[in-house]
Amino acid sequence: MVEKKRDLRSLAQLVNGEIAGDGDTLIRGLGSIETAGEGEIAFLVKANRTDALKSTQASAVIVPMSIEAADKPLIRVRDPYLASAKIHNFLLDEPFRAQGIHPRACIGEGCTIPEQVSIAPCAVLGDRVRLGERVTIGAGTVVGDDVAIGDDTTLKANVTVEKGCRLGCRVTIHPGAVIGADGYGYAVDEKGCHVKRPQVGIVRIDDDVEIGANTCIDRATFGVTWIKSGVKIDNLVQIAHNVIIGENSLLVSQVGIAGSASCGRNVVLGGKVAINGHIHLDDGVMVASCGGVHQSLPKGSLVGGRPALPVKQWAKATAVFARLPELAKDVKQLIKDVESLKDDKKK
Amino acid sequence: MVEKKRDLRSLAQLVNGEIAGDGDTLIRGLGSIETAGEGEIAFLVKANRTDALKSTQASAVIVPMSIEAADKPLIRVRDPYLASAKIHNFLLDEPFRAQGIHPRACIGEGCTIPEQVSIAPCAVLGDRVRLGERVTIGAGTVVGDDVAIGDDTTLKANVTVEKGCRLGCRVTIHPGAVIGADGYGYAVDEKGCHVKRPQVGIVRIDDDVEIGANTCIDRATFGVTWIKSGVKIDNLVQIAHNVIIGENSLLVSQVGIAGSASCGRNVVLGGKVAINGHIHLDDGVMVASCGGVHQSLPKGSLVGGRPALPVKQWAKATAVFARLPELAKDVKQLIKDVESLKDDKKK
Amino acid sequence: MVEKKRDLRSLAQLVNGEIAGDGDTLIRGLGSIETAGEGEIAFLVKANRTDALKSTQASAVIVPMSIEAADKPLIRVRDPYLASAKIHNFLLDEPFRAQGIHPRACIGEGCTIPEQVSIAPCAVLGDRVRLGERVTIGAGTVVGDDVAIGDDTTLKANVTVEKGCRLGCRVTIHPGAVIGADGYGYAVDEKGCHVKRPQVGIVRIDDDVEIGANTCIDRATFGVTWIKSGVKIDNLVQIAHNVIIGENSLLVSQVGIAGSASCGRNVVLGGKVAINGHIHLDDGVMVASCGGVHQSLPKGSLVGGRPALPVKQWAKATAVFARLPELAKDVKQLIKDVESLKDDKKK
Repeated sequence: MVEKKRDLRSLAQLVNGEIAGDGDTLIRGLGSIETAGEGEIAFLVKANRTDALKSTQASAVIVPMSIEAADKPLIRVRDPYLASAKIHNFLLDEPFRAQGIHPRACIGEGCTIPEQVSIAPCAVLGDRVRLGERVTIGAGTVVGDDVAIGDDTTLKANVTVEKGCRLGCRVTIHPGAVIGADGYGYAVDEKGCHVKRPQVGIVRIDDDVEIGANTCIDRATFGVTWIKSGVKIDNLVQIAHNVIIGENSLLVSQVGIAGSASCGRNVVLGGKVAINGHIHLDDGVMVASCGGVHQSLPKGSLVGGRPALPVKQWAKATAVFARLPELAKDVKQLIKDVESLKDDKKK
Repeated sequence: MVEKKRDLRSLAQLVNGEIAGDGDTLIRGLGSIETAGEGEIAFLVKANRTDALKSTQASAVIVPMSIEAADKPLIRVRDPYLASAKIHNFLLDEPFRAQGIHPRACIGEGCTIPEQVSIAPCAVLGDRVRLGERVTIGAGTVVGDDVAIGDDTTLKANVTVEKGCRLGCRVTIHPGAVIGADGYGYAVDEKGCHVKRPQVGIVRIDDDVEIGANTCIDRATFGVTWIKSGVKIDNLVQIAHNVIIGENSLLVSQVGIAGSASCGRNVVLGGKVAINGHIHLDDGVMVASCGGVHQSLPKGSLVGGRPALPVKQWAKATAVFARLPELAKDVKQLIKDVESLKDDKKK
Repeated sequence: MVEKKRDLRSLAQLVNGEIAGDGDTLIRGLGSIETAGEGEIAFLVKANRTDALKSTQASAVIVPMSIEAADKPLIRVRDPYLASAKIHNFLLDEPFRAQGIHPRACIGEGCTIPEQVSIAPCAVLGDRVRLGERVTIGAGTVVGDDVAIGDDTTLKANVTVEKGCRLGCRVTIHPGAVIGADGYGYAVDEKGCHVKRPQVGIVRIDDDVEIGANTCIDRATFGVTWIKSGVKIDNLVQIAHNVIIGENSLLVSQVGIAGSASCGRNVVLGGKVAINGHIHLDDGVMVASCGGVHQSLPKGSLVGGRPALPVKQWAKATAVFARLPELAKDVKQLIKDVESLKDDKKK
């Protein structure tokens, strides 16, 4: 195996950056501007923090193009936040080391499991599970019958994936997440009791998706609940049956999406956002945290509040809300004044 | 074992439906109107979707009474949504197949476990656990000491039921749910530190309850937290200590109910609803999603918003909220106009 | 072992209480005023509930100082709620009984595990885990490599603590909680795809912290996410990367705190509260349930609403909100009246 080149020049090439200073500087890690030390590279997102650039102990710094030189070697880039993420991933990247199937793991019948996998103790796989290359299954994780998992996918500890669900490649699922539990669907009978609708669909998760801890994605009633490629979902999010989330969308923590709603590409839902069932949020829609969306939204809408309004309108309305008591007092006074003016006229 | 009759006539009898067309048509499954194929029955909830009725590949369709005939055999019923749920359950129903206790399951001392159960690998039962007939315990599920579980109840994977809790018959608990964790109760001491109140009650769950993935139901401080029969709870719901939920109530995802609150029968709480502690929602109360209820509500109340208002009032108020900036401008102008009118008068 | 003194006099001494009646009364347990029976002590928080004091079957009652005597022995204290919690803990307190390492638990290499611990079946410890004295690890709980856990700490069932996290002494973590999953941090690349920022920090949890079921506390991007001593966190709470929670703060269920936010000491966040990233709530801040805080708050602020306002202002504004439709009607009428007055003037 060829050792990775970790000199500043090689790192700069990774991110199309320009070197200022000694390109031969060797880098072994990446840290924040405050904590990085000897042998580490730091990053500065905003050009005006030159004080931090002076005081940092880092051996080199990734900076915006507007900074041309400093006391120490620099990689100058258009987007230091992005460049530092790429360089950090590169520095941390290690070849997959297969640990095989732990003797305390429990594997069902008829499974397809390549040699290059890591299956931890107390992981339980059902029957006919198919794993791709370099899959990691964490301790205590339970994978149902007939689940298919793509290459380089990692299920952390105590995850549950129920029967028949299909996961793509390079998917990461954090601890406690539940994929493919029954959707919440009932019919009401003559006595007011709830008759469960069988939930016979699955969850399909495409490539490069990340799913946060204790997040729940329900299986479809019929067909699929579908998380498309590149979607990143935070912790404690609820995704109901038959929801579709478009490519590269971001769902921040505690979001809740009701049944059969769908999102286009690059939709961003802030923390605690609520999305009604059976509506569509088109590409690029952004909902500010705590917003509640009751109806479909066209491409690129920016909304906030419950029920959601265009963000500017919402900001103005909440500003007035804060001084509603004064407004009400003004109106009361106006009514008095106008009555008095009307009375004068009558006289 | 007698094989189930799966001809259209038998299915119609199940749901008090009327046949239009060939009652001998054999049905092996149920699908949605768009996806059902040869040998499957579909259902149409709304009579106006006759296009779907024409194009479906299903061998038969469950329809509202207002549709009298079509190109294919029909079951005509008052409530196709309910009838299709019943028929789907009938078609999928299979006799319980006991898998016994997996050698990798771990059973405590003094447990009562009938022969007809399925206990998956890495399930852990404490001491003196009593299981009913045909109970299923999923992989990685942990059941505390002295828990009692009724007939035909299923705990899916990675569920936790803490000591002493009592579950009825035909209960389903989805993965990651936690039943019987300590309630959140503290006294504040002289130094501002929190002294934990021991939580010595239990959780009691009655028959036919369904509990969603990663939902938490805390044990009572004293006595019981009580989920009555037929209640259906979605994912990621929080139910605090000493809460009582009445028969057949529905709690949608991410609802939170604070300590000692209670609900009557057939209460419906929409997604993300918040209920204050120590209040009572009487029979049939409905709270729209994201509503926050701060005080007790009489029978049949329909409320929404935070704090919750009667839904109609809430709808009107939110409509005005959206145009508050204009309203504030109007008031400002009125003040000017009235001042000017008053000035004129003085002259 | 010396047996605990359980006579009323000894219990009163524990809480600096005064005895009224027979101090030799023996007490074996504590119950609520409604349910306590022979041999149990109950407590009365409010002095005006003398009816309950009369009807209770308890052998003694903890009461406020204002109650001087009753038909049965009393412990008179300043704060019966606090005193009863202390006495209840004393009565329930038992010496730790080490169960050792269950043969079905799975321990990694190089761990430091004292003799006095209890590690349940299907618990999985990684490599180099260090446990303090009298640590309890529940069934199905997974502890990552290099985690350190202090004395008398309890992880209940199905908890996940990821690699490198550090837990203090007397910490309790309830089932399903996830400590140290990756923070939610991405950079956006040229194509709108999300590049994961490696999350290389840890979670640090100090002494006497309690963490609710299915709560998630993410590891820091760099450095620590830090829960300071005495903090009590309810169920289903989300704490993002690099958050700091000050001593003795209370976080009620379903709270969400975004990245790099911090709280001072004795902060109280009601249920479902949302805190923006990168802001600071100073000591003693209280946020009413469902509040959303968008900016830093000074010491002792009491706020509510979304976005949060001072509670009194918020209460008044919500009161006006409820009658917005009438207010709008008033304004409409005023505009008409003023127009008519202006017209009159012109004539």
